[in-house]
Amino acid sequence: MHLNKDSLLQLDRIKRLNVVNAVSGIKPANLIGTISNSRQANVAIFSSVIHLGSNPALLGFISRPSKDVRRHTLENILETQYYTINHVHKFMIEKAHYTSAKFEKNQSEFEYCGLTEEYLFDFKAPFVKESRVKLGMRLMDCQPIELNGTLLVIGEIQHIILPDEAIHKDGHIDIASLDGVGLSGLNNYYQIEKLTSLPYARVSEVPDFMS
Amino acid sequence: MHLNKDSLLQLDRIKRLNVVNAVSGIKPANLIGTISNSRQANVAIFSSVIHLGSNPALLGFISRPSKDVRRHTLENILETQYYTINHVHKFMIEKAHYTSAKFEKNQSEFEYCGLTEEYLFDFKAPFVKESRVKLGMRLMDCQPIELNGTLLVIGEIQHIILPDEAIHKDGHIDIASLDGVGLSGLNNYYQIEKLTSLPYARVSEVPDFMS
Repeated sequence: MHLNKDSLLQLDRIKRLNVVNAVSGIKPANLIGTISNSRQANVAIFSSVIHLGSNPALLGFISRPSKDVRRHTLENILETQYYTINHVHKFMIEKAHYTSAKFEKNQSEFEYCGLTEEYLFDFKAPFVKESRVKLGMRLMDCQPIELNGTLLVIGEIQHIILPDEAIHKDGHIDIASLDGVGLSGLNNYYQIEKLTSLPYARVSEVPDFMS
Repeated sequence: MHLNKDSLLQLDRIKRLNVVNAVSGIKPANLIGTISNSRQANVAIFSSVIHLGSNPALLGFISRPSKDVRRHTLENILETQYYTINHVHKFMIEKAHYTSAKFEKNQSEFEYCGLTEEYLFDFKAPFVKESRVKLGMRLMDCQPIELNGTLLVIGEIQHIILPDEAIHKDGHIDIASLDGVGLSGLNNYYQIEKLTSLPYARVSEVPDFMS
């Protein structure tokens, strides 16, 4: 099948959304936890968390702007500067997925979706107790993407919490043993299974693929 | 295990790289194909391709700047405005991985890594013939991320090429049937298996998680 720019535009809207949300490949499934200054907690699923750099340890995610629909996650982050990123695991896919429903700001997705707020290390934003990999994040920047009015929200890692047994001596994290999941498109969940680890690639050590 | 900002900084460099590259969750594995104006082709693996929006259909990826090490992918994109994004599959992990070795600009990773340049629809940049999901991209913007000197390279989808049987009527793409893979950290490859598709989440249809 070949779609060009024009035939893509002519697809039914839902079909186009599904296709364009899937073509980048597997995406991480994370819950972002926030709280307003008036102590209303919020948690929502995001598939756009991305590694930006290791020193400083920066992660980004994409938010649509607040102007059309109210974006509680973004509003809370801008208000307090803090948020958490929590992995979604196989046993919590359904609860995590339904955080994407358009709850009112005074309705906590934690409560409606059966997830538990957890406050650790005097960190302002709520972690998700059920999650096995939790990050405490501090807002560093919020860059507008002029082309479509979205925002790249950038934060620095303040805390990493994960089970001792999931982290190898060299720092590799075994996300399959944690029942980690991935997302494709808008609503397709995948489990992941370790295939292989390959060495750091040096030109002098490239296998002979040429013959 | 709990790492805070300070204990993370005190980790051995390689361990810190592995941890920070893994905590965002599973990442997509894609090959970006480019060509210079002098017809030198280049292909390199990236784990940072991200969906930015569906209308227009925009994808981004993160590039380190060209100033320290020469970034052939970035240089070629800035020169020609065109590039391709090609999924990595289970049967081509090793070839894809070794494109990350620091080849010279006059050495083609296509040749050294046993991958095949493919030119389709008069599109300027080379697709990867072995890949089963291929995107032709046109550069739209290149936004500096001031916090760490990286760049968010943004392109609009011009072409999508994939097998008919992998795309459902509603636009879902079955990436597991295509032997799609994910990446964790710098060099850990995972296969993916479909778990479930959940409906669009409406507040009125949220299951009763509260009891």
